Amino acid sequence: LGTTALFYWIMLAGVALYAMTGVLDAGRKGMDIVGACAIGMATAAGGGTIRDLLMDRPVFWITDQSYLLVSLGTAILAFFLHRVIQLPPRLFLILDALGLALFTVSGTQLALAAGTPWLVAGFMGLITGVAGGVLRDILCNDIPLIFLPGQLYAIAAAAGAAAVVVMHAAEFSHQLAATIGFLVAAGLRLAAITFKLRGPEWQPRGD
Amino acid sequence: LGTTALFYWIMLAGVALYAMTGVLDAGRKGMDIVGACAIGMATAAGGGTIRDLLMDRPVFWITDQSYLLVSLGTAILAFFLHRVIQLPPRLFLILDALGLALFTVSGTQLALAAGTPWLVAGFMGLITGVAGGVLRDILCNDIPLIFLPGQLYAIAAAAGAAAVVVMHAAEFSHQLAATIGFLVAAGLRLAAITFKLRGPEWQPRGD
Amino acid sequence: LGTTALFYWIMLAGVALYAMTGVLDAGRKGMDIVGACAIGMATAAGGGTIRDLLMDRPVFWITDQSYLLVSLGTAILAFFLHRVIQLPPRLFLILDALGLALFTVSGTQLALAAGTPWLVAGFMGLITGVAGGVLRDILCNDIPLIFLPGQLYAIAAAAGAAAVVVMHAAEFSHQLAATIGFLVAAGLRLAAITFKLRGPEWQPRGD
Repeated sequence: LGTTALFYWIMLAGVALYAMTGVLDAGRKGMDIVGACAIGMATAAGGGTIRDLLMDRPVFWITDQSYLLVSLGTAILAFFLHRVIQLPPRLFLILDALGLALFTVSGTQLALAAGTPWLVAGFMGLITGVAGGVLRDILCNDIPLIFLPGQLYAIAAAAGAAAVVVMHAAEFSHQLAATIGFLVAAGLRLAAITFKLRGPEWQPRGD
Repeated sequence: LGTTALFYWIMLAGVALYAMTGVLDAGRKGMDIVGACAIGMATAAGGGTIRDLLMDRPVFWITDQSYLLVSLGTAILAFFLHRVIQLPPRLFLILDALGLALFTVSGTQLALAAGTPWLVAGFMGLITGVAGGVLRDILCNDIPLIFLPGQLYAIAAAAGAAAVVVMHAAEFSHQLAATIGFLVAAGLRLAAITFKLRGPEWQPRGD
Repeated sequence: LGTTALFYWIMLAGVALYAMTGVLDAGRKGMDIVGACAIGMATAAGGGTIRDLLMDRPVFWITDQSYLLVSLGTAILAFFLHRVIQLPPRLFLILDALGLALFTVSGTQLALAAGTPWLVAGFMGLITGVAGGVLRDILCNDIPLIFLPGQLYAIAAAAGAAAVVVMHAAEFSHQLAATIGFLVAAGLRLAAITFKLRGPEWQPRGD
């Protein structure tokens, strides 16, 4: 199993995990199986899809339908089996942090490889990591969770993307940049969960 | 009048019908004429637009502005004349079922002709049929209606798309595949209205 | 300083202004800095981004990252300094009217230059002017403000776009068409603010 193949399987696992979080949210909203599949697939593929549309690349799940098969299959399984199979909440958060780091780093490197300016590349990484969740919340008619005060999530992803961009500018190898970026994003997110780290909040005007 | 011209006029009629449903929803929300036109056009053109963006095709209403003219004109007429002209609700549901079947089948065949994998082609058909309504609900700040428990709608469209995909794989003619797909989608949707057929719903965990 | 350079700086000022309105809305919703930056950037760049995606042009902030830098920088400044720096509400409305006119006219001319049909060109101008605000409201989980009864906003933009389209068809110079279009849109919007002009509203069916 080469590095590329390993990476491919890890990406599919990330897609399945994101789909699962979407289905659980759809269930909380009382949606039926159509809603569960739609929200699951939007959460799993939304970030990469928006990135590909913005960068005018072929959308990643159109040429290779494995991503669609995995997210749809996971959504259907999670819809019918969610009462039988349960992940412990803590494991769920850890897996989600790894997925966030993976998606963000891969999106950033993909944009850098396409020659976008540095801020655009970091932003594309961030979109790959978090836009699926934003789309999920919009389809569920909620304010996107990551826009509200809470533990670092998008900021952890942004820090990971920034690490990749800086190491790329300093001409480190792609592998090293990816590894460090992944560790920064995942580490910061896991630290935020453990130590309840929060970002700056809005200070209303005093009266 | 050849088949292509007939098809073109039927598509324009479908666009007008979808625009009308959008305007009525905008009215229920107390929107003004800007909201009515926006919701009407989004409902009418949203599905095909999202499909074209995902498949990196020229957006269908940009080269031929008839679609825009028809949906905008219908929206304005429906806004001012909705108190005068009324369709019986039952006729409305039947026309909507025909529109759903037509849009779904045409979207699926268009994706198959572009060489997309089978699951992607069916999904593109489904998007063409239902994504305009999802966009309408998001712009109206509602949970998309088709994600909530209710009579089969997206599932009827998905069945029609599946029929087209299977018949394409079995190398039947395009005309026959389109006809069967249309009958499956429209028939299932009309049966769902008549017999109140419903899809699987979410089973909350017991306490 | 040539005309092109002047235009470029005016566009950047418009982007900063739109970003500021987005941040203030995010603050009203109690969002943190992630939400403020996301809403600010979506308001500033959303209209032009949707236009570029629909027209299959390179998205304007991807090749030149100044727009991203300015909107992100403005959003961060507005987030931290909104209690210190305040624009008088009336000045804010006037600047917003100028931004609306500028974005609408530039979007219309861009579409005409790309050879789109006249209704599509006007619609692209309208999208450039108002779709950022619609995206802001969707991300804030509100019904888009411009769809609700109120003072003329989208209609003022549409009138400006129409003026550009008509003058283009009558083969006036681009500069003159842009100037008249700008005056129509900004003038109508400012008149709407001053004299409380409103568009047609929905007439519910009597019982």
